[in-house]
Amino acid sequence: MSTAERLIESARELLWERGYTGTSPKAIQQRAGAGQGSMYHHFAGKPDLALAAIRRTAEEMRAKAEEQFSASGTALDRVTAYLRRERDVLKGCPVGRLTQDPDVMGDPALRAPVDETLAWLRERLAEVLAEGRERGELDDALDPRAAAATVVAVLQGGYVLARAAGSVQPFDQAITGVLGLLTAHVSTICASRRASGTGAEPLPPLS
Amino acid sequence: MSTAERLIESARELLWERGYTGTSPKAIQQRAGAGQGSMYHHFAGKPDLALAAIRRTAEEMRAKAEEQFSASGTALDRVTAYLRRERDVLKGCPVGRLTQDPDVMGDPALRAPVDETLAWLRERLAEVLAEGRERGELDDALDPRAAAATVVAVLQGGYVLARAAGSVQPFDQAITGVLGLLTAHVSTICASRRASGTGAEPLPPLS
Repeated sequence: MSTAERLIESARELLWERGYTGTSPKAIQQRAGAGQGSMYHHFAGKPDLALAAIRRTAEEMRAKAEEQFSASGTALDRVTAYLRRERDVLKGCPVGRLTQDPDVMGDPALRAPVDETLAWLRERLAEVLAEGRERGELDDALDPRAAAATVVAVLQGGYVLARAAGSVQPFDQAITGVLGLLTAHVSTICASRRASGTGAEPLPPLS
Repeated sequence: MSTAERLIESARELLWERGYTGTSPKAIQQRAGAGQGSMYHHFAGKPDLALAAIRRTAEEMRAKAEEQFSASGTALDRVTAYLRRERDVLKGCPVGRLTQDPDVMGDPALRAPVDETLAWLRERLAEVLAEGRERGELDDALDPRAAAATVVAVLQGGYVLARAAGSVQPFDQAITGVLGLLTAHVSTICASRRASGTGAEPLPPLS
C-alpha cells in the first residue's frame, strides 16, 4: 500500500473509533507509519485527508447496501437482508457517527458525503418499498418515503442503543420491531400466495 | 446560581454541543465564569463534573418523557405525544450523542447513566404499548418490547438523519413513518369504536 493509501485507511479507522474531533493528525501519522512531511505532501491537512477517508467509507457503504437493495426477492426480503446483514454493531455506523462531530457538521465539505449517503439510503429504500407496493407485495396503506426514513433511522438509532448497552441485543430488538411492523403491511393476497408457494417467481431486474 | 451549579450547567451545554472528548476543562470554566481552582474545589476533575452534568440531563429527560407516558389517552396517543413533542432536533439527543464519545463509552461510571436512560425509555414505552394491547387498543400481533426498541431507535436515528441533512424534515418523516406503522396495529374494533365516539372514556391512572 502506498503512503497516501495507508494515511487514508488509518484516518478511516480513527474517524470510526474516535471521531474527527478526537483524532489528531499525529495519531493518523503514527497509525499509518508516516511522517508529518509525508502527510502534508499528499494532503493539504487534516480536513483534506478526512474528506478522502469519509468519501471512501461512504462509497463502500453504498456499494454494500446496493447489494441487498438490488438482490432478487420481495421488497420485504430485501429490506430484511439489508437490516439483518452482518454488521460491526458495537462500533456503530462510520458515517452516521460523524453527525455527532461538531467539526464535521460545521464544515460543509465534510458534511456533504455524510448527508448524501444517508439521503441516498432513504431514497433507495423508498424505491424498494414503492416497488413492493406496485407489485402488490405491500398494501397501499404503506407510505414508502416515510417508512424508508423510519428504516434508516432505526438502523442509526439501533447503533446508539447497542453502544449505550454495550450489547447488540437492543439493536437486534429494534430491527425485529421494525420488520414486524412492516410485515403487517404485507398484502394478504400476496401473503397467501407465498404461503401456497405460487408467488415465488423471480423478480425482473431493476430499471 | 452557585459556582458549582454554573459549572454543571456549562458542562451540560458543552457536552451537548461538542461531546465529552471535544470539551476541555478550560472551556467549561470559561463558560461558567469560574477559575480552575474553583472547579477543582467542587469537582475531582472533568470526569466527576461530567458525571454530575450527564446525570442531571438524564433525570430531566426521564421526567419530560414520563409526562407523556403517564398522560391520559390511548397508548398510541401517548407514544404520538412523546414522539411529536417539541424538541431541539438539530442539536440531537444530549444523552444519545454521548454513545459516539469513546471516552464516555470507555468509562463505566460515565456510560452508566447513558445506558440506564435509554434502557428506561425502552422499558416504559414497552409498558405503554403492553397496556394498549391489554385494553384492546392495539392488536395482539404487536410485540410491545420490540416495538418499544424500534420507537426509541427511530428517535435516536431521526436525530442523526436531521443533523446530517441540516433539516428537521427527515426526522419528522421517520416519526411519521413509525407512527404510520404502529397505526396499522390499532385494533379494528377499537378503531371503529373511536370513530363512532363510543370508546373515548378517560383511561384509569397507571398503577
